[in-house]
Amino acid sequence: MVTVVILGAGNIAQHFYTVFQNTESIQVVQVYNRSEKALQYFNAVHTTTNLKDIVEAAVYIIAVADDAIASISNKIPFTDRFVVHTSGSASMHVLHKKNRRGVFYPLQTFTKGTQVDFATIPLCLEAADKTDFKLLHSMAAAIGSTSYRISSEQRRALHVSAVFVNNFSNHLYRIAHEICEANNVPFKILNPLIQETANKLNTLTPYMAQTGPAKRGDEKTINDHIAKLEKDIHKEIYTLLTQSIGKTYGREEL
Amino acid sequence: MVTVVILGAGNIAQHFYTVFQNTESIQVVQVYNRSEKALQYFNAVHTTTNLKDIVEAAVYIIAVADDAIASISNKIPFTDRFVVHTSGSASMHVLHKKNRRGVFYPLQTFTKGTQVDFATIPLCLEAADKTDFKLLHSMAAAIGSTSYRISSEQRRALHVSAVFVNNFSNHLYRIAHEICEANNVPFKILNPLIQETANKLNTLTPYMAQTGPAKRGDEKTINDHIAKLEKDIHKEIYTLLTQSIGKTYGREEL
Repeated sequence: MVTVVILGAGNIAQHFYTVFQNTESIQVVQVYNRSEKALQYFNAVHTTTNLKDIVEAAVYIIAVADDAIASISNKIPFTDRFVVHTSGSASMHVLHKKNRRGVFYPLQTFTKGTQVDFATIPLCLEAADKTDFKLLHSMAAAIGSTSYRISSEQRRALHVSAVFVNNFSNHLYRIAHEICEANNVPFKILNPLIQETANKLNTLTPYMAQTGPAKRGDEKTINDHIAKLEKDIHKEIYTLLTQSIGKTYGREEL
Repeated sequence: MVTVVILGAGNIAQHFYTVFQNTESIQVVQVYNRSEKALQYFNAVHTTTNLKDIVEAAVYIIAVADDAIASISNKIPFTDRFVVHTSGSASMHVLHKKNRRGVFYPLQTFTKGTQVDFATIPLCLEAADKTDFKLLHSMAAAIGSTSYRISSEQRRALHVSAVFVNNFSNHLYRIAHEICEANNVPFKILNPLIQETANKLNTLTPYMAQTGPAKRGDEKTINDHIAKLEKDIHKEIYTLLTQSIGKTYGREEL
């Protein structure tokens, strides 16, 4: 049985709490949070708002905003235990060195209140100590996740990549939504195309999957599209991404 | 029984041919193409390379490159029949007016050699004549597609939107692939995130689904990310999309 204390009460803390509660080999023994209110969610375990009351456990999971990780790991009153954070962008070394350090980063976008299937979520693991790494690996396996040994530097690269494929792709969906609304077209017509664009990566690299006027160098369609766009920033985004696709396929200028 | 002649032998022509062959109420009676070679695919029906040999049918589907539609519809030797094209960006009026005109546009990305499920593909229909429109509607229903009445102007908006959600999203996947390769991280780790980003649109609008440093206005992470990117054009894309997300959530400048 791996005993766990979770520090933090937000989205990630809740998702880990829920999946650990459903895992026989992992036991959440306590949840800490600065404020009482957010602790209501964790009604099946002992909770505290006082760092001095934290109990002993095999691993302490700090699941708080990036800029609060260093401070909370510093304030922890104990030493020589195993403390991890769950951040994609923070280095393992933002954790205070008085404890053994590690990272347990789920590479997925979480929606509050929506159950997630950890079997589909890759976990990026890092630990300074070999035995600690094995513990994280066994925890990932216990909740059904595929895990990868990822250094802080690699994790930073993954986190930037995640911004491109998640945050930025979603923003492109938003722009399409705006264009549809401005032209009285239901956005849902695009949904199958959006799903298929993502699905293609199960069989093709993005390089192979690329299609469209920018790849073909079809200047007439490109100019028609830019003329059709109403917002300047949409024109700018269209132009820049078209230029970048052109470069990818060997055209310096369109 | 709806009789169909397909003009063109490319990707879209092949997909329509295959699904019509499997549909009881639609019969492909002939496929025309300028060159003989590409006609090999259509081995179960009569084929021709001569426009003068085209037989009678209820609907003629021109499935060729956008810039060839006007020319082929002009060269067709008959008049007063029903002729449609399958393009997302070309107006219905690029078809020569000597025939009755329409559009039968499948809004999806097609991969050569990959079977497609038309039940998941929205068809955008347009026809000048009411009876012709009904015919297209019944054909869409026969192959299991959901269809929408979409004007040429609306279709143009959808086509620009499709470039954003398909071509440009795929290019963002490509950029992430490049970043992963440069940092010795397997790109496949990002695949579940990519799928989930698309899946979220089944329950949330893109406006509601947005997360990340650009939305939060988290300047430290944004600057770290831009510093981490090696290619100037990736920095430019990161900066512009971050700025656009900022505007969407009410921040003029970051």
